[in-house]
Amino acid sequence: MTTPTLSLACDLINRESVTPVDAGCQEMMIERLKALGFSIEVMVFEDTTNFWARRGTEAPLFAFAGHTDVVPSGPIDQWHTPPFEATIIDDHLHGRGAADMKGSLASMIVAVEEFIAQHPVHKGSIAFLITSDEEGPFINGTTRVVDTLMERGELIDMCIVGEPSSTTEVGDVVKNGRRGSITGDITFKGIQGHVAYPHIAKNPVHGALPALGELASTQWDEGNEFFPPTSFQIPNLQAGTGASNVIPGEFNVQFNMRFSTELDNQRIQQRVHSILDAHGLDYQLDWTFNGDPFLTDKGALLDAVVAAVTKVNHKAPQLLTTGGTSDGRFIAKMGTQVIELGPVNATIHKVNECVSITDLEKLTEMYKQTLIHLFAQS
Amino acid sequence: MTTPTLSLACDLINRESVTPVDAGCQEMMIERLKALGFSIEVMVFEDTTNFWARRGTEAPLFAFAGHTDVVPSGPIDQWHTPPFEATIIDDHLHGRGAADMKGSLASMIVAVEEFIAQHPVHKGSIAFLITSDEEGPFINGTTRVVDTLMERGELIDMCIVGEPSSTTEVGDVVKNGRRGSITGDITFKGIQGHVAYPHIAKNPVHGALPALGELASTQWDEGNEFFPPTSFQIPNLQAGTGASNVIPGEFNVQFNMRFSTELDNQRIQQRVHSILDAHGLDYQLDWTFNGDPFLTDKGALLDAVVAAVTKVNHKAPQLLTTGGTSDGRFIAKMGTQVIELGPVNATIHKVNECVSITDLEKLTEMYKQTLIHLFAQS
Ligand SMILES: [Zn+2]
Ligand SMILES: [Zn+2]
Repeated sequence: MTTPTLSLACDLINRESVTPVDAGCQEMMIERLKALGFSIEVMVFEDTTNFWARRGTEAPLFAFAGHTDVVPSGPIDQWHTPPFEATIIDDHLHGRGAADMKGSLASMIVAVEEFIAQHPVHKGSIAFLITSDEEGPFINGTTRVVDTLMERGELIDMCIVGEPSSTTEVGDVVKNGRRGSITGDITFKGIQGHVAYPHIAKNPVHGALPALGELASTQWDEGNEFFPPTSFQIPNLQAGTGASNVIPGEFNVQFNMRFSTELDNQRIQQRVHSILDAHGLDYQLDWTFNGDPFLTDKGALLDAVVAAVTKVNHKAPQLLTTGGTSDGRFIAKMGTQVIELGPVNATIHKVNECVSITDLEKLTEMYKQTLIHLFAQS
Repeated sequence: MTTPTLSLACDLINRESVTPVDAGCQEMMIERLKALGFSIEVMVFEDTTNFWARRGTEAPLFAFAGHTDVVPSGPIDQWHTPPFEATIIDDHLHGRGAADMKGSLASMIVAVEEFIAQHPVHKGSIAFLITSDEEGPFINGTTRVVDTLMERGELIDMCIVGEPSSTTEVGDVVKNGRRGSITGDITFKGIQGHVAYPHIAKNPVHGALPALGELASTQWDEGNEFFPPTSFQIPNLQAGTGASNVIPGEFNVQFNMRFSTELDNQRIQQRVHSILDAHGLDYQLDWTFNGDPFLTDKGALLDAVVAAVTKVNHKAPQLLTTGGTSDGRFIAKMGTQVIELGPVNATIHKVNECVSITDLEKLTEMYKQTLIHLFAQS
């Protein structure tokens, strides 16, 4: 037995929309929203298709945010079903994007359809901010739509991002914030030479080891009520030509820090430089700032989402700020209350990605109950 | 004005004998040695041509050792002359192999020709051990000729290897030994994961940093009268997939140690393992043993070489054991006194390799004077 949510989720999965390709997914969503009286604004930036849809002119402005693009299938022979053909096995819908996040998109559309059918006249405004660039370099997606909205003063007050926030069943975890993220690329400089003549060379690896050890073992902060302690990780490092008799001239190290609201971009840079400088190293360090931490503490949106999830699940969600970055960080720049609520994330970005069909129906209901809490006329 | 040494060096350089190709170089040498009454034994192992030539049956057995192969030309557009066309500019002979070591081979042949012309009846036996695999993996070259000689009990008592030992003029440095060399390839094992979830991953880089720091800063020994202290270098290391959000599951580190006679293979392995184990690391370590240190202290050969060099240069050579490995380490296994004496090494393995023609003539004379010291009938 199919349902409106399941049916739309299948139609979206069947379109091979690997980043930044949208493959007509947004057009399907737009047709449904037009029929509900949304005004549609397609925003194409370079290779990326985005749209902004809005129904109503009143405040507050509530938006669903999400992405139609998916990551590549990965090794196709490890899939039990074709990744771009939605397939139902037992209670699960299989296919790339099922959990991240075409299932959520289907739930959002159907939730809004059902809400408007019951509440054709509602408080506030409902919007959709949809991109096809979330899994890519996030240059021409949400961030540019947000810029456009900010320029004209159309600020989103509350936003649910459909990212898969849940751990074992939908709604067990809601993300009410995210840590900040910053990446540093260091090139330590030495003098290349032959291993047999170390006195006329300078191995940059040897010089950097104690400093890297100190960076890796530093307690950056202790976190706080809402955030775990700031973390430091070295995802990549490399030195050498492959030859076992050549002392390398350079040593490249990349590190990434996920930081709490106890720290910021500038203080992190200061502390990293002061550790490196204390070791007297010759280095170049290029920073990539990926986003500030944000937190959506008590307020209308969090109250509505917690009530909606509790009504469906008969238990309250856990509120966390852990996990990877999402487009929520760009939206939060507007001063928006941002919450992430979506399916179980166990299979995302992996082969045999899938989502529980029961969970998808529950998610539709959670989104709808949130709208009722926020906007139903009493 | 050409000379026998210069003329033969040119003929050898004009043959493009990039490892393991000999390109007829050995045949040219063999013809000259046959004419002097040497008995010739060509030894082909796999892709490598070697020969063993001997004149005389008496002890002691003295050998010249060397290689006809050369390293590739490298970037051809950076050469001022064609690398495989011997070209004379001012007092220098240019071409790949001029210094390493076709110049030496020419000097050896001419030195022996001149010595035998003056001393047709001499003490001892004179031999040549020539390979075309010194610049390659050294599997089918000198080491197999040495194995063959050892099996039949034909042990070389004294050997001059023609490797370019000199620093600014021929004979300023003679190598009377070499450090041992051992390489270790370590794979540190962790648990791959997402940088946003470090508590369910284990970054092997972070765990290994303090241990690597300790290895790099350890004083392994203090060297001795003949050897500099044992050195430790990390020529290569790598971790990560390139993605900035993935904690790597493995960390590969290669190190190389050049060690003095104060240490050996086994004690080095023991000490490295005990440092790694003290840090409680999960790792795999594969060793490649490249050769024991050897030393040719006072004795007939060193006396003869020092006297010969001093006679030509009017000053004694400096005796060193520094620098890279050479085939001398394989020959030393026979208990042979091994000395390296050859041209200035400033341009070897580089573009525009060249050798001073004056130095080549002096080198011929040094080799001849050594033979006179050792074998001329008094
Ligand atoms: Zn996603
Ligand atoms: Zn050589």
